[in-house]
Amino acid sequence: MEKPKHHIFVSASFRLTGKQKGFCQGKDAAEIVQMIAEEIDNQGVSDEIMVSTTGCLNLCDQGPIVIVYPENVWYGGVTSEDAEDIVSAVLGGTVVERLVIT
Amino acid sequence: MEKPKHHIFVSASFRLTGKQKGFCQGKDAAEIVQMIAEEIDNQGVSDEIMVSTTGCLNLCDQGPIVIVYPENVWYGGVTSEDAEDIVSAVLGGTVVERLVIT
Repeated sequence: MEKPKHHIFVSASFRLTGKQKGFCQGKDAAEIVQMIAEEIDNQGVSDEIMVSTTGCLNLCDQGPIVIVYPENVWYGGVTSEDAEDIVSAVLGGTVVERLVIT
Repeated sequence: MEKPKHHIFVSASFRLTGKQKGFCQGKDAAEIVQMIAEEIDNQGVSDEIMVSTTGCLNLCDQGPIVIVYPENVWYGGVTSEDAEDIVSAVLGGTVVERLVIT
C-alpha cells in the first residue's frame, strides 16, 4: 500500500447512525469533497493527495471544517470555491491564511 | 481552538449519500470508534487525542482501517479489542506492529 503524502479531511457531519445532519451538511460538504477531488485530478496529483470525509468534529460554529494531515492545518468556513487554493497550498507547502482556524 | 496532538480516524464506509455500506461497516466500525473513545476517556487524554470517523478509504480488503495523524500510521483489520493497544501506542510514541499495513 502506498500512503498518500497528504490527506485532506472534510467534515461532513456524519453521525454514527450514518445520518448526515447539521451545519456542515447544510453548507454542502459533499460539494467541497467533490471540488477538492476534481482539483486533485486536474492537477494530476492523485498519487500524492487523498481526500476523505470525516464525521462531526464538534466545531460546528466554524464549519465546514477541512483538515490537512500530516501538516495538521485546520480550515474553517470552507466553501467549494476554496478547493483550488487548498490543494495548491498543500502542494506548495503553504497554508490558505484566510481560512485557518486560530 | 485547541488542536488535538493526535487524531485517530476510523473508516466507517460512509458514502457521500450518508449511507453506511460494505466491509468496514459489517465489521462494526462504529464499535471500534466507541471503544477508542472509551479508552481515551479511561486514560484521561481527551485533551490530547481526538477520534473521528472517516468515509471509505478504498482499502476495503484490508478494513476496517484506522489511521493516526500526524504520525501517518495506518492499521488494517482492526477490531474493537485493539482499541486499548492503539491508544496506548499513540501515547507512547510507538506503533501496534501486528496491525500496521505494509
